[in-house]
Amino acid sequence: MPAPVDHHARRRQITAAARRVICRGGLDAVTFQSVAAEAGISVRLVQYYFGTKKDFLLATHRSVMDDAGTRFTRRRNELGPDATPREVIRAVLTELLPLDEQRREETLVLGAFGWSAITGGGITAEDTFAAPRALATIVADQLRRAPTGEDAGDPEADADLVVMAAGGLAQGMLQGYSTSRTPLELVEHLLDRVLGSTER
Amino acid sequence: MPAPVDHHARRRQITAAARRVICRGGLDAVTFQSVAAEAGISVRLVQYYFGTKKDFLLATHRSVMDDAGTRFTRRRNELGPDATPREVIRAVLTELLPLDEQRREETLVLGAFGWSAITGGGITAEDTFAAPRALATIVADQLRRAPTGEDAGDPEADADLVVMAAGGLAQGMLQGYSTSRTPLELVEHLLDRVLGSTER
Repeated sequence: MPAPVDHHARRRQITAAARRVICRGGLDAVTFQSVAAEAGISVRLVQYYFGTKKDFLLATHRSVMDDAGTRFTRRRNELGPDATPREVIRAVLTELLPLDEQRREETLVLGAFGWSAITGGGITAEDTFAAPRALATIVADQLRRAPTGEDAGDPEADADLVVMAAGGLAQGMLQGYSTSRTPLELVEHLLDRVLGSTER
Repeated sequence: MPAPVDHHARRRQITAAARRVICRGGLDAVTFQSVAAEAGISVRLVQYYFGTKKDFLLATHRSVMDDAGTRFTRRRNELGPDATPREVIRAVLTELLPLDEQRREETLVLGAFGWSAITGGGITAEDTFAAPRALATIVADQLRRAPTGEDAGDPEADADLVVMAAGGLAQGMLQGYSTSRTPLELVEHLLDRVLGSTER
């Protein structure tokens, strides 16, 4: 009797191959053929798991979000229930920035989707908004937990600011743009500015 | 006698055509042929003005920076010598965000250069850093002018934060990402966070 097929593992094998193809050539490089070749399987098998190129691209996008979400949940659990808003936001931001090879691949893939949405590639802009919206929700929830001081203000607008700044920082890191501050120092400064420089 | 050739106008005609080509197809779409066709002139004439494709791309990049710089200088003069740091930073940020068709074209072109630098296109990352560095310098100079309060802190890190956030905001605007705040409201919120919410 043949071993049962692990469909989940097979789908992951295919989306992982798609991510590598995107890192090398952008979304334009993704075809059933190029991804099948990268994964070392038949075109027919890729088509069996993903009916259309659009489905396939969206599954690849979702796989990046899922990986980042899994890492974030693990970090969140390690921090425990008494973590401050600052600690939680720092953890989620550092999980999302391209600070190692895996996160660099994720950032590049999300960037390729964003750029493709702008230039009219195979994906619509709306499809790419799940990642920044999820980040904004997490950050706003944490900011609402922070003790309110006189400058406490506006969790939604601060969350938007964090998402904007994290997006710009990630993009700059991919390009190798550097300043007198390291990326992690800039994250701390961003946290100072939205939470106040006193710990809370 | 033929009219004298206006070399400056001719170079502008060519870089303007290159910008339109980039907006439609990214940096990969730029060739002497495609730009000559877009400008309605001969390939030979494009080659006469720009010896190599790299020179040509850099001149196009610089033309965007020059246009934005010219608009910013005009706004700066309109504001006059008594403008507050907040007014000056607001002016430069709004001149850079894709709030109308021209600025959208500029943001798209700069984004295409940035993306090409990441994915190993015809331009190096270093070539694309002039724009964020110029912005960081202007912002830091203005923040140094602001009266120092107890949370005054760190003009360089705040300037980096403004550049990061403006970059992320511009990218989001190109994609059509929206939140409960308008782009201009987010600019005001960013200014609140780096300057304090009291006017200075």
